[in-house]
Amino acid sequence: MKRTIALALFLLGLAGITFGQGTPSPESEIRAVLDAQQAAWNRGDIEGFMGYYWKSDDLTFQSGNSRTHGWSEVLARYQRTYPPGTMGRLEFTDLVFKILSRDAAFVLGRFRLDQGGALREGVFTLIFRRTGQGWRIVHDHTSSK
Amino acid sequence: MKRTIALALFLLGLAGITFGQGTPSPESEIRAVLDAQQAAWNRGDIEGFMGYYWKSDDLTFQSGNSRTHGWSEVLARYQRTYPPGTMGRLEFTDLVFKILSRDAAFVLGRFRLDQGGALREGVFTLIFRRTGQGWRIVHDHTSSK
Repeated sequence: MKRTIALALFLLGLAGITFGQGTPSPESEIRAVLDAQQAAWNRGDIEGFMGYYWKSDDLTFQSGNSRTHGWSEVLARYQRTYPPGTMGRLEFTDLVFKILSRDAAFVLGRFRLDQGGALREGVFTLIFRRTGQGWRIVHDHTSSK
Repeated sequence: MKRTIALALFLLGLAGITFGQGTPSPESEIRAVLDAQQAAWNRGDIEGFMGYYWKSDDLTFQSGNSRTHGWSEVLARYQRTYPPGTMGRLEFTDLVFKILSRDAAFVLGRFRLDQGGALREGVFTLIFRRTGQGWRIVHDHTSSK
């Protein structure tokens, strides 16, 4: 009997390690990236926001009817679109996480950018890859009405 | 000597099978899907076009600032947007193929829809998964100016 209880406690402990304190799931890791991006944007830190994009010439960004290639070009596009003082307050909602493999995933979401008077709303598709630095956006497609 | 020539011919044959006529690459398989979709659209066959989308309630489609869930809803959206006689001539260009894993990939592209007078242009991101029926679109994000 004691042995059975000991075994049960051991198994419960194991379950706790496996499901409770184990490696964070890809979904929770990617959610943390999006939270960090939102926080960076909302303190006006566009480079911090860009830190979660893959720093590569192969990064791609599509919006409207245009495509942008490369991390530096995407940063330049954000800087052109949002001059200092116009970044406003960004919020991501309606997130859907889809895990494709151990190191690839995509996320659908909705953004709401309140620029104090002007309100921009739209949807995005982000493709993530797990890199040595953590999950990074390798492709972004954003659109609004 | 004869034996060496025979062995050399055998190895060349093997190389031919491996590199020439072997399993088609994911890129060429996905390209064939896009060609078939384009052909279906251009003969006014919207259900044929839709045959390459994942037939699942988990299929997603984003455009403008809206998101559509499920194969039947995506079909209904296409049917609403393009009533009979308005499908016009569709062309995909500027395709970029990115393979994520053995059974996942994404494709960037540009579309041009000539409706005879009206011209619609835009960009798309398609996420593909390899299914028992071949590569299928599991998510589509399309936008235009």
